[in-house]
Amino acid sequence: MNRWLRLSLIVTAAFFVPVVMAAAQTMKKASALPAVSPETAACVECHTLLNPGLVEDWKKSRHARVTPRDALGKPTIQRRLSAEKIAPGLQGVAVGCYECHGLNPSSQRDTFEHFGTKINTIVSPRDCSTCHPVEADQYARSKKAFAIPNLEKNAVYSLLVSTVTNTKSFKNGVLTGVGSSSNAKNETCYACHGTEVKVKGMKKVSTAMLGDVEMPNLTNMPNQGVGRINPDGSLGSCAACHPRHSFSIEVARKPYTCAQCHVEPDVPAWNVYKESKHGNIFFSKERAWDFDAVPWAVGRDFSAPTCAACHMSLVTTPDGDAIRQRSHDFGDRLWLRIFGLVYSHPQPKAGSTWVIRNKENLPLPTAFTGEPASGFLIDKKEQQERRAGMERLCVACHGSNWAGAHFDKFHATVREADAMVLASTGVMSEAWGRKLVDNANPFDEVLEQKWVTQWLVNANSLRYSSAMGGPDHATFKHGWWGLTKTLEEMREFLKVGKEK
Amino acid sequence: MNRWLRLSLIVTAAFFVPVVMAAAQTMKKASALPAVSPETAACVECHTLLNPGLVEDWKKSRHARVTPRDALGKPTIQRRLSAEKIAPGLQGVAVGCYECHGLNPSSQRDTFEHFGTKINTIVSPRDCSTCHPVEADQYARSKKAFAIPNLEKNAVYSLLVSTVTNTKSFKNGVLTGVGSSSNAKNETCYACHGTEVKVKGMKKVSTAMLGDVEMPNLTNMPNQGVGRINPDGSLGSCAACHPRHSFSIEVARKPYTCAQCHVEPDVPAWNVYKESKHGNIFFSKERAWDFDAVPWAVGRDFSAPTCAACHMSLVTTPDGDAIRQRSHDFGDRLWLRIFGLVYSHPQPKAGSTWVIRNKENLPLPTAFTGEPASGFLIDKKEQQERRAGMERLCVACHGSNWAGAHFDKFHATVREADAMVLASTGVMSEAWGRKLVDNANPFDEVLEQKWVTQWLVNANSLRYSSAMGGPDHATFKHGWWGLTKTLEEMREFLKVGKEK
Amino acid sequence: MNRWLRLSLIVTAAFFVPVVMAAAQTMKKASALPAVSPETAACVECHTLLNPGLVEDWKKSRHARVTPRDALGKPTIQRRLSAEKIAPGLQGVAVGCYECHGLNPSSQRDTFEHFGTKINTIVSPRDCSTCHPVEADQYARSKKAFAIPNLEKNAVYSLLVSTVTNTKSFKNGVLTGVGSSSNAKNETCYACHGTEVKVKGMKKVSTAMLGDVEMPNLTNMPNQGVGRINPDGSLGSCAACHPRHSFSIEVARKPYTCAQCHVEPDVPAWNVYKESKHGNIFFSKERAWDFDAVPWAVGRDFSAPTCAACHMSLVTTPDGDAIRQRSHDFGDRLWLRIFGLVYSHPQPKAGSTWVIRNKENLPLPTAFTGEPASGFLIDKKEQQERRAGMERLCVACHGSNWAGAHFDKFHATVREADAMVLASTGVMSEAWGRKLVDNANPFDEVLEQKWVTQWLVNANSLRYSSAMGGPDHATFKHGWWGLTKTLEEMREFLKVGKEK
Repeated sequence: MNRWLRLSLIVTAAFFVPVVMAAAQTMKKASALPAVSPETAACVECHTLLNPGLVEDWKKSRHARVTPRDALGKPTIQRRLSAEKIAPGLQGVAVGCYECHGLNPSSQRDTFEHFGTKINTIVSPRDCSTCHPVEADQYARSKKAFAIPNLEKNAVYSLLVSTVTNTKSFKNGVLTGVGSSSNAKNETCYACHGTEVKVKGMKKVSTAMLGDVEMPNLTNMPNQGVGRINPDGSLGSCAACHPRHSFSIEVARKPYTCAQCHVEPDVPAWNVYKESKHGNIFFSKERAWDFDAVPWAVGRDFSAPTCAACHMSLVTTPDGDAIRQRSHDFGDRLWLRIFGLVYSHPQPKAGSTWVIRNKENLPLPTAFTGEPASGFLIDKKEQQERRAGMERLCVACHGSNWAGAHFDKFHATVREADAMVLASTGVMSEAWGRKLVDNANPFDEVLEQKWVTQWLVNANSLRYSSAMGGPDHATFKHGWWGLTKTLEEMREFLKVGKEK
Repeated sequence: MNRWLRLSLIVTAAFFVPVVMAAAQTMKKASALPAVSPETAACVECHTLLNPGLVEDWKKSRHARVTPRDALGKPTIQRRLSAEKIAPGLQGVAVGCYECHGLNPSSQRDTFEHFGTKINTIVSPRDCSTCHPVEADQYARSKKAFAIPNLEKNAVYSLLVSTVTNTKSFKNGVLTGVGSSSNAKNETCYACHGTEVKVKGMKKVSTAMLGDVEMPNLTNMPNQGVGRINPDGSLGSCAACHPRHSFSIEVARKPYTCAQCHVEPDVPAWNVYKESKHGNIFFSKERAWDFDAVPWAVGRDFSAPTCAACHMSLVTTPDGDAIRQRSHDFGDRLWLRIFGLVYSHPQPKAGSTWVIRNKENLPLPTAFTGEPASGFLIDKKEQQERRAGMERLCVACHGSNWAGAHFDKFHATVREADAMVLASTGVMSEAWGRKLVDNANPFDEVLEQKWVTQWLVNANSLRYSSAMGGPDHATFKHGWWGLTKTLEEMREFLKVGKEK
Repeated sequence: MNRWLRLSLIVTAAFFVPVVMAAAQTMKKASALPAVSPETAACVECHTLLNPGLVEDWKKSRHARVTPRDALGKPTIQRRLSAEKIAPGLQGVAVGCYECHGLNPSSQRDTFEHFGTKINTIVSPRDCSTCHPVEADQYARSKKAFAIPNLEKNAVYSLLVSTVTNTKSFKNGVLTGVGSSSNAKNETCYACHGTEVKVKGMKKVSTAMLGDVEMPNLTNMPNQGVGRINPDGSLGSCAACHPRHSFSIEVARKPYTCAQCHVEPDVPAWNVYKESKHGNIFFSKERAWDFDAVPWAVGRDFSAPTCAACHMSLVTTPDGDAIRQRSHDFGDRLWLRIFGLVYSHPQPKAGSTWVIRNKENLPLPTAFTGEPASGFLIDKKEQQERRAGMERLCVACHGSNWAGAHFDKFHATVREADAMVLASTGVMSEAWGRKLVDNANPFDEVLEQKWVTQWLVNANSLRYSSAMGGPDHATFKHGWWGLTKTLEEMREFLKVGKEK
């Protein structure tokens, strides 16, 4: 063969090889999914017909595309699962229906016989911990995990819940509270906090394809609250942030997820973020960012933080050096709790806040006049360390001067917000003391509702605004305008004295 | 010729052909637009200079890229037009300026002579029905089509409109209503509901290029309200949801379109959606979805519903089996009307709700104490069928257990919202009965405004929150907090009795 | 060499050349960045380790990718810089750290010795004017540049600020104002308006890598307000709209940027836009638009305006003909100022509005009863020219009929909003006149707060709603409902007379 010809072919090949390989790669990406277990294959066969959207969602997920064995083979910093070992039977197949819905059948009260296989409907954090034990452990310690008892076993908070959701009846000139139904609670506070899911025997569900099918009768569902009490006793719902069958890290890293619960008027984190410079950049540039990369490198994968970046995610430099480690104990990077109930205070030491007692022996993190229930809250040293840790994140993009000055300003603002709440509490106390308002229930009269608005809406708005830099929420959107206006309404209501 | 060389060329070609064809395809896509009619060519010639954005918008539209003949040639389930036949003259050219603005010149009162051609400025649903008759027919039966008379011919609602938009004057210590102008109505309620567009002769418009041009003088424009009364007598504006000259199915399927009108405080559909799990997934994933595919396959084209998916669109499985057929009679998938006026009630039988009479002979779907005006509303059987139809959509992604439990919860919540409105109406009636408030106009005094807030804002917020799963709107964002707080303010205002 | 072979190679080459060149182009795009100065190289070396996100942000910016020399070589209409000449030393290197932070060392009070180089931390509009002098000049004339004195030197506005942010204390039955701190002002009004940044000596900052580093101690930072007074005396912060180290035109053109400050309740521009047809199209289609093109061609690069398109940007036809020239004097396309303080009025002639005096000799653009302070405001002719200029932009996509009718409607609505404010002011005056309310401070009592709400929230909402076509903000979201409801509350509060 002619030398020149061979050269020509080699030159041609040299150009083609990458093109061809890229094409093959693409095809492989699309088609070469790992094997599924026979049980999962059986699930998919029926449920593709019954619930096509659900099955397609899973098919696009990483669970369908990567086996635990391949996942375990990655360098530590790139791993999305934290188990050191995984049962051999689970390692070589896709993480399919059965691999999750068939786990731990003996400890699940919602396990049932389903066409010859033991299935449980609710996949709980305990099930997820099979591959993600570190995340499950961290989560189990967080305030989120205890979101139900923190509301229900706290006599003050649960009175607020039942007062707000108390259905009324008006007869013969009298307005009467009929009571707060579990439905009303599930639709409001417990929608985010979570419900207690119990199994009340079995029920028949009519289906188009298979006639009547027997299934466990689950109470208080549907619910995806962060502290859901599952039939296996575990706390939480991973689907709260990694929704449905895509189990997506991308979705959890986007602020839209946090925005389901952390919204105004009471927790305006999302609203403030939207008006912040961080939010401005996020909305403008998110399409160019990579929300799926592990690790998540500042500057390379994203250029402004979302909620996850500051509060949870493993964040690295583009060279792969960790700036912060991943944490699913939400709140463990925070030193101050600004969701003021009723004043800001150092973060609680433990996730179960209902055990806290203030000096008045109430289950509140501060006294009525603001003093923190220090024994239950993190100490100064821990506060300083957490602040320093947060500043390390800020400094990835800002000068240390900037970061430090930002939090100094934040602390000053939180003090002023607390002062405005204290003044409002003073007026409120005066009203109770003079028996102008009945303190039997501190949440149910007009003046009391104004007082609740002060700390739950206006002061929270000011605090969050400062924390994340969205000034409108400090100014006319609740914030200072709300605090000043409502305090004057309270004063006017009571006709207490005034000096300027 | 050398064998090896020929082989080399064949091998080369084998690799190149797809690349070259793809490139050609791309060029064709961009350039090989169908022929335009001579009339349209004339329009485009001038208007490219006058209104370049408008012309570009059309050029990118499907109307410019596909002829009706090609569109008719597609399999039924992929068709975007519903006419069985289209006039031969329209079939072979792009759907251009003249093909729409030149239709039905005899029945349009806004037709005018424009540089030698008869043109009408407003393209109405009757014009669109040339190719889209099924959609036009469905729409003509919907509540949206009757959005003007449903407000204007309903004495109660139109009193609310004129009370809210009544300009005031303050002179000599007296506040006087000066009246509600048509401008004020057009800017508020009728901006969404639609205006009645009339032709008041011709007027001269000065243009930079062509000097003075005579055009029909249209009243109450611009307006794109859903029930606009057009100069040809037809009802509605397709551009309300398929805006401007792109006539996009993509835009109509995105919730931003519905969000123009269905927003808080009175109709918080969009606001609740944003905070729902569906919204969370939409915002996080919309960039990966195909909003232009017909049919629209769940799981393949989208993984969480937008407004259109549940309320309007033809939705299929990825295999192309229809789950729900397309409908432009908005509301015909719904059984309950939760935009409470003043209570929730079964959906009206017909789009023209102003003919409804309750037992008090008022044009309202419920009596003052909540009983539905059943003769005008769909019956139990129809309600059950519609709910079953909606659940079929839910089950595309959720278990049937989940879907059923969701709507059970929804019904329970709607009942509680109605109970809170009933209690508020009780206090209001007491005030009217005791002549503490004048019921001549039930909407204009402070206590009455609070009562309106109860059903129009707070109860609506609670109902929508439950329907679509955005709990904050059931809790502190209006919802229960709003209902409870405002009811207490009403009680305090009147000093009626209270029991806990 | 064989003829056929040569042909084969030529044919091959003919196909390959574009592919190879495209690949090279891509590589060049990614890698062939212009040279950086030695000073910048030194900055990058350390700061990549210290602030990787910051450095990456810059690396992706146009400043890192195009030298001033290349930028100057472009056709005028495509230029992103307005300097005719640039110092030779700056022309041939990337616009890096030192090229901006090392400018004008003698006039910057925050210049300091930093590892052997003179560095200033704040890059001010004066520094940016090195390459962008036209933009800097325009900006320096705008209301934004004077945002601090316009608030601080205006006795009325600064009283509003200090009243709203006055911390209170409640002791012995008396509510006392403790004063408005500079922190509270910086977190609220001055966060958007800007702070005065001063250098208070040096301070030591501890760093992980380099131990203690001395830096200027800047007061009132961080701040990116539009009227920030910089240590070099210049006004404004370009980073307010071109944030951080990407200096992006894309970000500035997206409405998320304007949305940081122009939000409800007081300036609901963003909120109205979101509910407008323009907003609907923006959200639905923005992913297909080119926000980086210069010039920015309507129809080609975008199909509905963002804030920038109407208010600032150079907008051309797809053929490159200018429809409007770029302006950084925000507001110079507007004729009416609808952010009513307290009534709408013609735009001020100059950016420094604090010098305005109305007929009552107050620094307000209108008298208490609405008459404009005409000497300080643009005249009828200028108003008409500006309106005509705006309509030229509208007509890029709309008929001139549409554009004209839109603004006629707008003017009618603004008149009605002003009438409702006038009636509210009438009630307020009556209260002051009858000494029922103390006018020593016109902003601090309940009735006064309602009056402020009328013009600052409700009337503004109505005016913006009309200007940009978001009807809900004219109806139940503040707007008419807010105006009517609050006026009735004011009347009820005072028990003034009423006629219907």
